[in-house]
Amino acid sequence: MLLLIHFPLDPASRKVRILLKEKGLAFDLREERPWERREEFLAMSPAGDLPVLVETDGKPIADVGAIVEYLEETGSTPSLYGSEPRARAEVRRLAAWFDRKFQREVTTNLLDEKIGRRIMGKGTPDSSAIRAGILNLKTHLDYIAWLADRRNWLAGDNFSMADISAAAQLSCIDYLGDVPWDDHAGARDWYQRVKSRPSLRPLLGDRLPGAPPPKHYADLDF
Amino acid sequence: MLLLIHFPLDPASRKVRILLKEKGLAFDLREERPWERREEFLAMSPAGDLPVLVETDGKPIADVGAIVEYLEETGSTPSLYGSEPRARAEVRRLAAWFDRKFQREVTTNLLDEKIGRRIMGKGTPDSSAIRAGILNLKTHLDYIAWLADRRNWLAGDNFSMADISAAAQLSCIDYLGDVPWDDHAGARDWYQRVKSRPSLRPLLGDRLPGAPPPKHYADLDF
Repeated sequence: MLLLIHFPLDPASRKVRILLKEKGLAFDLREERPWERREEFLAMSPAGDLPVLVETDGKPIADVGAIVEYLEETGSTPSLYGSEPRARAEVRRLAAWFDRKFQREVTTNLLDEKIGRRIMGKGTPDSSAIRAGILNLKTHLDYIAWLADRRNWLAGDNFSMADISAAAQLSCIDYLGDVPWDDHAGARDWYQRVKSRPSLRPLLGDRLPGAPPPKHYADLDF
Repeated sequence: MLLLIHFPLDPASRKVRILLKEKGLAFDLREERPWERREEFLAMSPAGDLPVLVETDGKPIADVGAIVEYLEETGSTPSLYGSEPRARAEVRRLAAWFDRKFQREVTTNLLDEKIGRRIMGKGTPDSSAIRAGILNLKTHLDYIAWLADRRNWLAGDNFSMADISAAAQLSCIDYLGDVPWDDHAGARDWYQRVKSRPSLRPLLGDRLPGAPPPKHYADLDF
């Protein structure tokens, strides 16, 4: 069986969890706290990043991008990039938008400050970072709504890695209760459709000790 | 003809310039200063990032990762990832190491501070960032030497996207004259081999007005 080494509120880990489910691949989960920098973990992931996918022969694959492309190349269907190279480039552009731009502008400011600092014992959150994160989040919700208004899913006709990447980030922020859904109906419509997919269901059951999510976090109708 | 919209000292732009040359694809170059946020440019690259590849039909492809995978998928040979999925995952892991970890720990601290601030008119460099960048650079040079001591090229037997990604970053830092080559013979041996490839040659001719590189920058024997 495949093994995914992950952390529940890590967007990169969530991205691979959703993808594995979409591809119908069975896997075990093992939680890792990467900031503890355990030697055994760093031997598998020299950069110290999550997740790590351990193949059935016990060999680890590190780096979220490498894992996603590996799963794409090893032929398990359906493809979450689509079939036409130009369309695949658009999926990858949007996936990178959420993996990096959303991560840097929103997730680092909110998740790392509110949860990361606490579990790593690094003091109180920086309120100016949190304000910046909340402000940037609105722009990203507007972009999601803009895309979803013009396309069936974020990158085109089909559910793709773009939707998965966005949901991996946004679901972590939603766990914090920081998403102003009432002001962003377009983004909410899209997220409701994403949330109702069976591949998202396991994430909605994640609970961090001492930091419960808001009630609506697991609701499909929020 | 393909057109690459780029900036000379942008590592992501350099990565695609090297790749296009390795694949033997002809292309024109057009310089863009992304911090000016021109509307015409943002229409092609909503994230505001370089480079952008404009296909022969005039349609733009944005995001460096999307461009690299697009060039890989549209079949131009040779592949710079190799043929076996596990080996391709190792190339991608190392490419991400340099694209993100080296970028964050070294390039942002040195290139953005020394050149970025000046050309964007954002004041004097932050000396603590520069000290951190120089310190982190040593660790990365050690990692390059460690890999090159065990493998023919960074990710295995063949020159790959891992070498290209490392060279794209390191060549920018070398332009600043910040690489302590004399203390890092292993990394120098590897970079000498990279530098002697025809695909690197055009980068060695780059000159930024008012900020010339050190003499050894274009020397193949340094």
